[in-house]
Amino acid sequence: MVLEEGTILSPRFDAAGLITCVAVDATSGEVLMLAHMNAQALSLTMETGEAHYFSRSRGKIWKKGESSGHTQKVLEIRIDCDQDAVVIKVEMGGTGAACHTGRRSCFYRTVPLGAPASAETRLGFTGDTPRFDPKAVYGKDSGH
Amino acid sequence: MVLEEGTILSPRFDAAGLITCVAVDATSGEVLMLAHMNAQALSLTMETGEAHYFSRSRGKIWKKGESSGHTQKVLEIRIDCDQDAVVIKVEMGGTGAACHTGRRSCFYRTVPLGAPASAETRLGFTGDTPRFDPKAVYGKDSGH
Repeated sequence: MVLEEGTILSPRFDAAGLITCVAVDATSGEVLMLAHMNAQALSLTMETGEAHYFSRSRGKIWKKGESSGHTQKVLEIRIDCDQDAVVIKVEMGGTGAACHTGRRSCFYRTVPLGAPASAETRLGFTGDTPRFDPKAVYGKDSGH
Repeated sequence: MVLEEGTILSPRFDAAGLITCVAVDATSGEVLMLAHMNAQALSLTMETGEAHYFSRSRGKIWKKGESSGHTQKVLEIRIDCDQDAVVIKVEMGGTGAACHTGRRSCFYRTVPLGAPASAETRLGFTGDTPRFDPKAVYGKDSGH
């Protein structure tokens, strides 16, 4: 298990050149969002201590918060056993909303347990309500 | 933003039929591992309350802990804004090790901040040491 026990950064980017990144709140540990990084986004994040991602829909590097002010100051980066995913511990800027819907976390809905998935499976809301109006910040066709 | 504000489960599986799943410790909130689910794995997880994943390397559904005893009892499932990722809050069975290396979490190494990535970037270890011998549990060619 060379990759798992290694001490040299050797990210395994997928066919699209990406690894998955999970951003968690540095204080509470809450999972805020999931996004992707290419080699340059990872390197910029390491160098600047500000989260950079790669937008698959826009096909380009994106500094989190560049348009919305919802920056992510990175206090720690962790990489997993097979080096194809990272966790970053962040301090949110702006209103503290990581999600483009204005909520603190993108994971603001629950999926019920106790029955298989169906076309009628209803989600619950956690009470993580929007902190800003996404239309006002991102415009009508809002992305993250 | 119909998908984001919707109350019906509508997972957006990727071209390979998968969504990403982040498993976190239900008590501490620590990120334990990242894996993938297809529609069946998600449905089985919902129905049984035990984490099921889809193994991309083996091309099949996999009940976490079926060979190792390191099961994951699912206390909550959350889905994100665009419904292509879930977070599951779990109680680990067995030794409490979610990682195939025997560690509690797969994210047991840190990536340094303050410089861009290079071929010499050294990782640190967090002190999350193996709780079992993976060779004894999984055999020589161990996967998760």
